Amino acid sequence: MSLHRIYHPPDAFSAKDKRELAESITAVYTALGLPEFYVDVIFVAIEKDSFFVGGEAKNKFIRIVIQHLAIQLENAQIKKTIIEKYEKAISPFIKEKDYDWEVC
Amino acid sequence: MSLHRIYHPPDAFSAKDKRELAESITAVYTALGLPEFYVDVIFVAIEKDSFFVGGEAKNKFIRIVIQHLAIQLENAQIKKTIIEKYEKAISPFIKEKDYDWEVC
Amino acid sequence: MSLHRIYHPPDAFSAKDKRELAESITAVYTALGLPEFYVDVIFVAIEKDSFFVGGEAKNKFIRIVIQHLAIQLENAQIKKTIIEKYEKAISPFIKEKDYDWEVC
Repeated sequence: MSLHRIYHPPDAFSAKDKRELAESITAVYTALGLPEFYVDVIFVAIEKDSFFVGGEAKNKFIRIVIQHLAIQLENAQIKKTIIEKYEKAISPFIKEKDYDWEVC
Repeated sequence: MSLHRIYHPPDAFSAKDKRELAESITAVYTALGLPEFYVDVIFVAIEKDSFFVGGEAKNKFIRIVIQHLAIQLENAQIKKTIIEKYEKAISPFIKEKDYDWEVC
Repeated sequence: MSLHRIYHPPDAFSAKDKRELAESITAVYTALGLPEFYVDVIFVAIEKDSFFVGGEAKNKFIRIVIQHLAIQLENAQIKKTIIEKYEKAISPFIKEKDYDWEVC
């Protein structure tokens, strides 16, 4: 299983955004031949001023934490490929809406 | 330490359910000779339509993320035993109430 | 990147506390020569009676989960140093306010 926890400001995503972003992340894995149900996405709303980078509050920041079962991603090349596709998949929902973000 | 984060729909568990589920998870470890205080359980309520499996919103889904200090579970057999007992421990609170769930 | 998720009772920290605690955690890393932006801190408020240690509800407990990119902390001595400095950094916000806590 892979688990994607998306920590976000409460108003960052509409219900439609959430669904489309989850679909988009799922597509990264199905394109690699993994089954749909492999991908869990959880949106965790984080209240204002509860999000810090370098000690500074960030209210337009998205933090995504990806957890793979170790065995399934031991190949560094596959991992790199996934991260690249991932960044592309999330871009319309995050980067193009002017949020900063991190994935790891 | 082991940490059990239980992501759940806001109305999935009563206060009593939470306490009993936490006790039940703790018992998995004490039965193996580990001290009670080894087990932390945190319930994180996730709002409606913020939980996706395979790109589809799931509003009757429980996601449990278990984190063990690596050193304490390097033995694969112990890990398997724990997961089996774990599934049994959580069943009355989750499976038997018709929630889907995942642990890993 | 390092990610610090701080699970806390809703009223544990003021906005000022959060900022100062985040600064204090960040300083642990900058003192080791790591860049400020290396440190993400997320505060996740956990509602009453949703936090258990050893099966018992704890309403004055802080749980911090630190996630480092593996490669950056493979050196056990550095890790130990960070944890020691970390405990010192969080103390005024947690220990000295009579909260129990765990970091790992």
